[in-house]
Amino acid sequence: MKIAPDDLRDIATGAAFLGAGGGGDPYIGRLLAMAAIDEFGMPEIIQADEIDDDAQVFTIAMLGAPTVLGEKAACGDDIDLAIERLAQRIGRAPDALVGIEIGGMNSLIPVMAASRLGLPLIDADGMGRAFPEIQMVTFNVYGIPCTPLAMTDDHLTSVIVDTADAKSAEDLVRLASVHLGCAVVMSSYPMNGAQVKSTAVRGTLTLARDIGRAIVRGRSEGDAVDTLVSFLRTTPYYNHCKILFDGKVHDIRRETRQGFSVGHCHLSALDGSGRVMEISFQNEHLVAREDGRTRAIVPDLICLVDRETAEPVPVEALKYGQRLKVIATSAAPIMRTAESLAVFGPRAFGLEEDFVPLEEIPEQPGGTKE
Amino acid sequence: MKIAPDDLRDIATGAAFLGAGGGGDPYIGRLLAMAAIDEFGMPEIIQADEIDDDAQVFTIAMLGAPTVLGEKAACGDDIDLAIERLAQRIGRAPDALVGIEIGGMNSLIPVMAASRLGLPLIDADGMGRAFPEIQMVTFNVYGIPCTPLAMTDDHLTSVIVDTADAKSAEDLVRLASVHLGCAVVMSSYPMNGAQVKSTAVRGTLTLARDIGRAIVRGRSEGDAVDTLVSFLRTTPYYNHCKILFDGKVHDIRRETRQGFSVGHCHLSALDGSGRVMEISFQNEHLVAREDGRTRAIVPDLICLVDRETAEPVPVEALKYGQRLKVIATSAAPIMRTAESLAVFGPRAFGLEEDFVPLEEIPEQPGGTKE
Repeated sequence: MKIAPDDLRDIATGAAFLGAGGGGDPYIGRLLAMAAIDEFGMPEIIQADEIDDDAQVFTIAMLGAPTVLGEKAACGDDIDLAIERLAQRIGRAPDALVGIEIGGMNSLIPVMAASRLGLPLIDADGMGRAFPEIQMVTFNVYGIPCTPLAMTDDHLTSVIVDTADAKSAEDLVRLASVHLGCAVVMSSYPMNGAQVKSTAVRGTLTLARDIGRAIVRGRSEGDAVDTLVSFLRTTPYYNHCKILFDGKVHDIRRETRQGFSVGHCHLSALDGSGRVMEISFQNEHLVAREDGRTRAIVPDLICLVDRETAEPVPVEALKYGQRLKVIATSAAPIMRTAESLAVFGPRAFGLEEDFVPLEEIPEQPGGTKE
Repeated sequence: MKIAPDDLRDIATGAAFLGAGGGGDPYIGRLLAMAAIDEFGMPEIIQADEIDDDAQVFTIAMLGAPTVLGEKAACGDDIDLAIERLAQRIGRAPDALVGIEIGGMNSLIPVMAASRLGLPLIDADGMGRAFPEIQMVTFNVYGIPCTPLAMTDDHLTSVIVDTADAKSAEDLVRLASVHLGCAVVMSSYPMNGAQVKSTAVRGTLTLARDIGRAIVRGRSEGDAVDTLVSFLRTTPYYNHCKILFDGKVHDIRRETRQGFSVGHCHLSALDGSGRVMEISFQNEHLVAREDGRTRAIVPDLICLVDRETAEPVPVEALKYGQRLKVIATSAAPIMRTAESLAVFGPRAFGLEEDFVPLEEIPEQPGGTKE
C-alpha cells in the first residue's frame, strides 16, 4: 500500500482523535512527514501479515512534553542516529519500522522515519491510541523487552539504555529527556516479525486515515460528529461508541508536572439541564464523570471534538468557552485484557476504581443536578 | 611489575592522601580489589611506555556521592558489563585499563577491574589526584573525547552515552547516577596507547603506594607528618610541599548538594597564636585561606592529615575537635598548564581568583589576628 500526500492530512486528523487529548500535535508530525517525503519519497506501508516472522522490527517515536514537542521537532538526523545506535547495539539493522502509538504526533514520526531510511512501515502500533509512558504498550504487556532503547536529541547526543523492565526504562528515559530539553527521539522494543503479529494493534494507520476522512466528509454531509460516530461504529476496535456530552468548557486546570500535562476540564451542558461533566487527564484523558458517576474510563478512549466540525481538540488547546462534544469509544480488545489493564488500566494512573467497558456503563446517569 | 597484597594497603593510604579530601573511601576500594584478587589473581601493572601506540585503552571508575559509594560498592558484574558495553559500542575490546583518578576509591577500582578481566593496568591516571567531575581530567584537557561512555549499576542497568563534549556527558551521567542510586560504574575515554602516553599523569599508582609506605614508615620513625613531607619532596609531581597549618577543627559545614559534598572547615592554631585557617571543598578541598589570604589553591593538592599519625582525613570524616595538619603540594606540571587550568583551575569551581602555584605563594602570611 502506498499513502498519498492527502492521506497524511487525514492521518493527522484521525490521529488527533485517537490521541484522546494527548500524543502531541499531529500537525507537526504531518509537516515532518511531508518534508521527509519531499526529499526521500513515500514509504511503503505493509500489513503485519506481510512481514517474515524473523524480520527485525524497531519502533520509532518522539518522547517529551507535548508543549515542547510542538516547538522542537525532530531534525531527521536524530531519527537516523537513534535507529543506527539501536541497530549497532543489537547487531542487526531493522527490516521494517512500526509505530509505538497511533495517537497524536507519533502517528506520523514513523512515516518520516520510514521515508528517510527507505524502510517499510507496518500498518500497526502498540496502543491503538496514545498513552503517556513507554511501558504502556501491548508490546510490553505481552512480554517484549522495551530495551535496548536508543534515544537522541537534536544535538545528536545519544543515550542507549538497557534496564530490567520497561517502567525502569521509562523513568530513566523521562529524566534524561527533561535534561535534554523535553523533546527526544527514541527507537525501542526491537522485536521480530512474529512478535509484531502476536502483540501489535493492527491496521491502525489505515484506521487513523479513515477516521480523518470521515471527519472531513462529515463536514459537508450534515452533522460532522454524527458522521464520525457512525463511521467509528463500523471499525473493528472503536465500534462501541457514544456521544457522552454536549457542552461548554467552563473550567480548565492544566499544569506541567514532571514532564506531563496534568489537570481536569469541566463542561456544562448546552441544553440548560445544568448537567456537568468532569474530565481528568494526564497528557491523555483518563476518566469522564457526570455527577460523580463514571461515564467512560481508560483505556477506552475519551475524545473532545468541536461540536460543529468534529475537529479533535487536544488537552493543550482546551480553552474556556469552547463548545465541544465528548465522544467515548472502546479500546482494541487486546488493550482490555487483564494483562493490559494491569499496565494501563485506571489504577496504573492512580485512579481508585476498576475498568468497566464503555458498553457496560448505563447510557443515562441516574440523575442530573436539576 | 606485580603488586603484592601489602601494596594494596599502602596504595589505599596514599590514595586517601592524594584524594585531597575527596575521591571516596579507598578502604572500600581496597576491600573490592582484595576480593577480586582472591578470585581472579593479581593483575599486571605496566608502565605507559610499555603499551603499543595503537593499543586500545579504557578508563574504569566509580562515580557518585562519596557517602553512598562507601555503602554501595561495585558488585563486579557491573564492572564487567560497563567494559563490555563500551567495547561493543566502539567495536573493539580493551588491551589495557587506566585509572581516571588516583585519589580515593578510584585508585583501586581499576585494580579490581584489571584483576577480574585479566587485563594489564597502566601505572598512570588522568589527574594525579581526585576531582569531582568527569571532564576534570588531562585526557579531556588534551583533546580525548570522554564518550562513548558506558555506565552501569548493580542491577545491571546500562546506559551508553555519546555527547558533544565532556561537560555534557558529566551533566547527563551525574543526573542518571543520582536516579540509579548515587553509585555507578563508568568506563569512558576510550583511547589508544599513544594518547595515554601524551596525556596521562604517569606513575601515579606507584606514587600512591610509596606515599602510603612513607606514612606507615613515619609512624615508627618519629614525626610521621615530617617523614611524609620529606618523601613528597622527592617525588616528581608533589615536590613543592608545605605544612600550611597545625590546628584543631572548630567549625565544619558540609551538605550534599546535587550529588556533591560542599562546605568548609575552620581550624584554629594549636600554638595559641589565634590564627585561623578556612578550607573550602566540593568533594575535594579547593582552597585554604588564612586571614582571607590564599595559602594554596586548586589544582594544587590540599590534604588534611592527623597531626600524630599522618593518616589522611577525608571530608566525610571531618569532625569538631580533630587535631590536624594541613599539607599542600604542587600538582603534576601537566595539571598546571593554561589548558588544564581552564578545566579545573579555581574559576572552574566558581572561585573568583586565579591559580598561583604553591611555591610562589609567600610562606608566611602578612600578619595574624593577634
